[in-house]
This record gives sequence, structure tokens and C-alpha cells, in this order.
Amino acid sequence: MEFISYKENGKIGTITLQNDKQRNALSLPLIQELDHLLKKIGTEKNVNVLIFEAEGKVFSSGHNLREVANQPQQDVLHLFQECAKMMRTLRDIPQITIAKVHGIATAAGCQLVAACDLAVASERAQFATPGAHIGLFCSTPAVFVSRNVGRKKAAEMLFTGDFITADDALLHGLVNKVVPHEELEQATEELAQSVARHSLAVLNIGKNQFYQQLQMEDFQALNYSSEVISLNSSHPDAIEGISAFLEKRQPEWSDRSNIEMDKVK
Amino acid sequence: MEFISYKENGKIGTITLQNDKQRNALSLPLIQELDHLLKKIGTEKNVNVLIFEAEGKVFSSGHNLREVANQPQQDVLHLFQECAKMMRTLRDIPQITIAKVHGIATAAGCQLVAACDLAVASERAQFATPGAHIGLFCSTPAVFVSRNVGRKKAAEMLFTGDFITADDALLHGLVNKVVPHEELEQATEELAQSVARHSLAVLNIGKNQFYQQLQMEDFQALNYSSEVISLNSSHPDAIEGISAFLEKRQPEWSDRSNIEMDKVK
Amino acid sequence: MEFISYKENGKIGTITLQNDKQRNALSLPLIQELDHLLKKIGTEKNVNVLIFEAEGKVFSSGHNLREVANQPQQDVLHLFQECAKMMRTLRDIPQITIAKVHGIATAAGCQLVAACDLAVASERAQFATPGAHIGLFCSTPAVFVSRNVGRKKAAEMLFTGDFITADDALLHGLVNKVVPHEELEQATEELAQSVARHSLAVLNIGKNQFYQQLQMEDFQALNYSSEVISLNSSHPDAIEGISAFLEKRQPEWSDRSNIEMDKVK
Repeated sequence: MEFISYKENGKIGTITLQNDKQRNALSLPLIQELDHLLKKIGTEKNVNVLIFEAEGKVFSSGHNLREVANQPQQDVLHLFQECAKMMRTLRDIPQITIAKVHGIATAAGCQLVAACDLAVASERAQFATPGAHIGLFCSTPAVFVSRNVGRKKAAEMLFTGDFITADDALLHGLVNKVVPHEELEQATEELAQSVARHSLAVLNIGKNQFYQQLQMEDFQALNYSSEVISLNSSHPDAIEGISAFLEKRQPEWSDRSNIEMDKVK
Repeated sequence: MEFISYKENGKIGTITLQNDKQRNALSLPLIQELDHLLKKIGTEKNVNVLIFEAEGKVFSSGHNLREVANQPQQDVLHLFQECAKMMRTLRDIPQITIAKVHGIATAAGCQLVAACDLAVASERAQFATPGAHIGLFCSTPAVFVSRNVGRKKAAEMLFTGDFITADDALLHGLVNKVVPHEELEQATEELAQSVARHSLAVLNIGKNQFYQQLQMEDFQALNYSSEVISLNSSHPDAIEGISAFLEKRQPEWSDRSNIEMDKVK
Repeated sequence: MEFISYKENGKIGTITLQNDKQRNALSLPLIQELDHLLKKIGTEKNVNVLIFEAEGKVFSSGHNLREVANQPQQDVLHLFQECAKMMRTLRDIPQITIAKVHGIATAAGCQLVAACDLAVASERAQFATPGAHIGLFCSTPAVFVSRNVGRKKAAEMLFTGDFITADDALLHGLVNKVVPHEELEQATEELAQSVARHSLAVLNIGKNQFYQQLQMEDFQALNYSSEVISLNSSHPDAIEGISAFLEKRQPEWSDRSNIEMDKVK
């Protein structure tokens, strides 16, 4: 891998964007490396949580404009479709994903933060969907930003193109936590650990169900979720977890948990 | 009724969970008592507002794990379906529902708070969807929690399983108000009165329309709602209400208001 | 025009409600004047941003009750359908809309604020959907209010009918900014300018895509948006904007930008 690196520590994996020269732009090669790595992590199931961090001053400046400017429209479409495919992989892997945002996250960089399940930001982080400034509206970042942030604030970010602070991002739901810059490492680690202690099989059931049900009418969602939780109840990790709870001991999850449980619809 | 009690005071009804020994677990018998009582209240139409409160230290700890652990999957499914049926009844009755949360509300207990139309919490209240801790993901609580709370915060609650404070619940939209513990009674009463003074027929029209339109595309919702409000305008309570307003007097709503108004679509 | 006036200043247009005697009620004639004017503004494309302000003490008190009370249901339906049609026009024009709320905004007046893309409020502004008080539930205002504000707060506004402050409106996402009364003019102007500097063609692409994708499943939205941004990338204003950015100069947008770009799907 040329533009990203990956390390595992216990049940936590960390992907580092290492394309500082291009302000960690989500260039096509980086996107493809990322998609490939995510699929590998999803298949290996060594870790339960996946942290996204970046080297250099900027978290990510979004797409590489040189791959957009004056390119055949078909190539531009290919670029965005590859990015969407990677975002889909991010959703489909069993791991819970956390963006660890130390600096500026703009356009597709902001989209990556919004697309992760969770996010922790340094006080120095800033967020923007600035496409309108360059005549290229941030249509793709808009998707996950507007699924994190209320309509009026999302509209403000998109139609002005201006930065919001980390505190504003917290207030409006784009990140889970804002901490002093020097505490970012530890705060992210703590959040990761609080998820990583759980069974990967169960996190996978939950992650899949959480996003599926969001799209449904209330009671269709409740009926679907009733089926999911009933199937979950007969999973070895539920049997173990409930027993451990009733016996007041720590649970021991099944190794590299079997996550092939049939998905309900 | 063995696990709940019910009293009426003017236009306000109060259901009390009285299963303190089991931390007010929503056991199958309690769920069935509740569903039966809700249907009765919905049919009698004596009250306009329905408060949910609980005796003992805990508001509700969710399902009774002994009804889930090592039970045939079919029985577990039945339990969750009965719970979903009760939540559906809660939605379908004409009364506006208020959760009055004095202590811990977890899993299906947190779901009950989220499923009510309104909620008031004591500063001592805490909320969690802790299923991941015991290998049984809070899939069913996720439904209404994620329809109250933004994605990132809902994901945090579900994937960590950890508690949030009453203040956090307020900030993220799970409750309407947080008050000092000794003021919970009065604050809930005041909110209930501010709803109970309205016509039950009109509250019913509004409750039904509010949740229906939430599921629709913006202008489908607006067209549907235009039809609803036009029908509403010829209801005796609208004619009386508008007259009273124009004549600067208090309205007198029709007794046990006729709520059989045909539902639009 | 009898009930509204309109002026343009650079790329910013301002519509002023001038029906102070009726507390700027959205009477049928006012609605029809507004719809006609909006269509003209959308067609002329002189401005990029459209501000809604009002003369007198009240921003808007909603519909004219005398057009609802004791009227044939067919006429009432016509009134609400004309209002919905105007709201649809508001959505369809290329301009970004900003509500500038100096005072009370109730019922359809509150709906207008919620339906605008952005909103700035004076500290003196107050918001309510008070229909339940007069037996006419605010079903139509509920639509956009509940698409700005979380469920519990929207339910509180609708079922109590009581006012919320400007600060509460900010906290819950109904407005973008609250400022001291004497700064309302300037704060609105600044927000308007931060949008007006962009290309109208690009704002139009973005406005249309933003609201379309909100209604879609996550990845359907992302795929649709990938197509939109790819088409956008070959628009003259994107080519100019990206060039200007890479050459570190100000972009010059095409005059009365061509917004006839084919809509995707």
C-alpha cells in the first residue's frame, strides 16, 4: 500500500491516511487501496473496531481535483462510483468504524467522517463541504452529512461552503466527542475499547440492523427488528452473554465470531 | 392487573409500572396487561393525556432476561412481537403519551421512553441500550431511539452500550425536559395539562397525521396534510375553537369528542 | 402587488410581507401573489438568494382564519392546496431562500420559516404551531417543522401549541442563527452574501440534489449524487471554478448561469 498504512492492536485496527503531500486527498488509487484493505479486514475479522486517522496537518481535503478538472465525464463518474463503492464496503464490513479527526476535513474528507459509525474530533478539527466555492457542489458529501446533521445546518454548510468548528460539529451531530488536541489519541482509544470489548458477531448483527431499520416505516422497522433480536437470542454469544450477566461474571465471546448468521430480509 | 396500576385525574391518566422486584422489567405478562389497558383507555376516551411512571428505584430495565435466556426461539419471537404490538397500540390510541422518567431506563425501558410522544426526566434519570454487553444487541430499542436521536449518538449508545445522562438525553432529543428530581411530578403535570386542555378529537387527528406524514416525501406529506387540515376545519371542535378565538373566549370542546373522523388515506 | 413587495440588490432579492394589519397572515391573495412572484424570480434568475422579511410587529401569523372559519370545506382545501403549491414553487426555484425572522412566526408563518433553506432570527422572534388551541391542528406546518426539528420537540410544539424562544429554535434546528434584534439586518445580509457569491447554476444543481437525496435510501442517494456531481463537473462554472482555484484567483461565473442542465432521473 502506497497511500495508507494499517496496524492492529488487540481488537482494534487503525488505518492511517499517508498522503500528506496531497493533503490526504481521496485520490482514485487511495480509494482503491482503501476498498481493498477494508474488504480484507472485513473478511479476516481480527478486529472489532476500525479507526481512521491521518498523518500531516490535514485529515483529508476530499477528492483530488486534478482527477476531476478537465477529465472526460466518464472518468469523473468512475472516480465517484469507486468512492461510493468504498463507502458501501465501509458500511458492509462487520467492524464498527471511528473517524479520529485531528485537523481539517473537507468535501469527501468530511463525507468520510460522516460515513463512519462514530467520530472523535480534536478542538483543532474543522469541517466543510466547500464545493460551491469552486463550482462543484458537494453533492456526494451531502448524503452522509445530511444524515448526521439537521436540514438547516446541512443546507448552511452546503450552500455557503464555509467551515464549521469542531464544537459546532458536536452540537449538530457530525461527531460524538470533541477533546483538547493532546487528548485525541486517548479519547479515541477509550471509545474504541468501549466497543471492542463486545462480540464482533453481535456488533455485526447490530450494525446491519441499525442501518437497515433507519430506512423503514416505524412499525415495519420494529417488526423487522423483532425478528433480528429473536435470531440474535439464539446466537452462542447471546447465550454466553446472558449467562455471564446472570452469573455476574465476564462473558467469553466465541473466537473470530461466526458472523454468517442469515440476514433477515 | 398485577404489574401495573392506572388512575385518572381530570383529563390525565397515569399508568404506573409496579414490578419493582424485577426492576419494572417489561415481562410478557406486564406487556399484555399494558396492551389491554391501553386499548381500554383508547376506547373509553376519558382522558386526553397518558403519563407513564414507575415505582421503585428504576424506571424500567427492559425485557425480563429470564424470558429470553435459553428459551425456544419461537417463544422469544412471540415476546418481541407482543411488545411490538403494545408499542403499536401506544401509537394508535388517541391520547398523547408522556414518559415520566425518575430513574434508570434501559433497553426496552429506554424504548418505551423513545416511543412515547413526549418525555420528562429527573436529573437522576439515565438511559442506555446496553444489549451489546450481554451479546443481545438492542435491535428493537434502536428503532425509536434512532427516531429521536441523531445517527452518531444513537450509534454510540448502541455500539458502546453505555449510559447517557439525562442532560445528554435532552441535548440529543430523547426527552423534552430535565428537571431536579423533586420537581419531576410538577413538571410532568404541567406538560400534561398543556396538552390535556385541547380537544381529544383534534389531538387524535394531529397524532395520527404527525406520524403518518413523517414517513412521506416532503410534498406528498404536504398534500396529505392539506387534506387532513381541511377535514379538521369542518370538525365541530374546530368550528367552536375558531369561534371562541375570534370572540376572545375559552372554547368548550365536545364531550368525549367524536374521533371517528374518517382517516385520510 | 398588494400584500408583498420585492426589491433586488446585486445577487440578493428581498420579498417583504406587507400585510401588517392582518399580522402578515398568509391570506389566499397573498399566497397567490407570492407564488406568482416566486415563479418570476425563478425564471428571471437575476438573483442567487431570496430573503423573506416582514413589516410590522409580527413576522407572520399564518393563515387568515376568516378564510377557514365557516367556509365550505372545498374552499378550505383550495386554500391549503394553493399554499402547498406556493411552498412547492419555493422549493423548485433555483434561488436559495432565507427567512429573516424579526418577530412572532406562528402556524403557516412558522411553516414558511421551516420551508426556507436557511433562517436567521432576532432574539425577539418566537415560534409556535398553535393550532390545537383553536381546534385546528397545525397539520400542514407540522410537515416542514418536523423535517427541521427532532420528533420529541416537534411533538411538543404541536401537541401543546405553545411558543418556543429563538434560542430554542436554534438549539433544535429550526433556524441557523440567532442575533440581537439590531443585528438581524446585517447577519442576514452576511449569510445571504456567503451564498450569493456562488454560481446560480451550481446552487440550483445543489438545491435540487440536496432535497432529492434526502428522501432516498443511503446508497441509492450516494449513487444518484455521484451522477449529479459528475454531470456538474463538466458544467462551465465547475471548469471555471476549479481552474480559478488551482490558479489561486477569483472565479468568474457565467452570466445568468445556464441552469437548464438535465436533471438526473
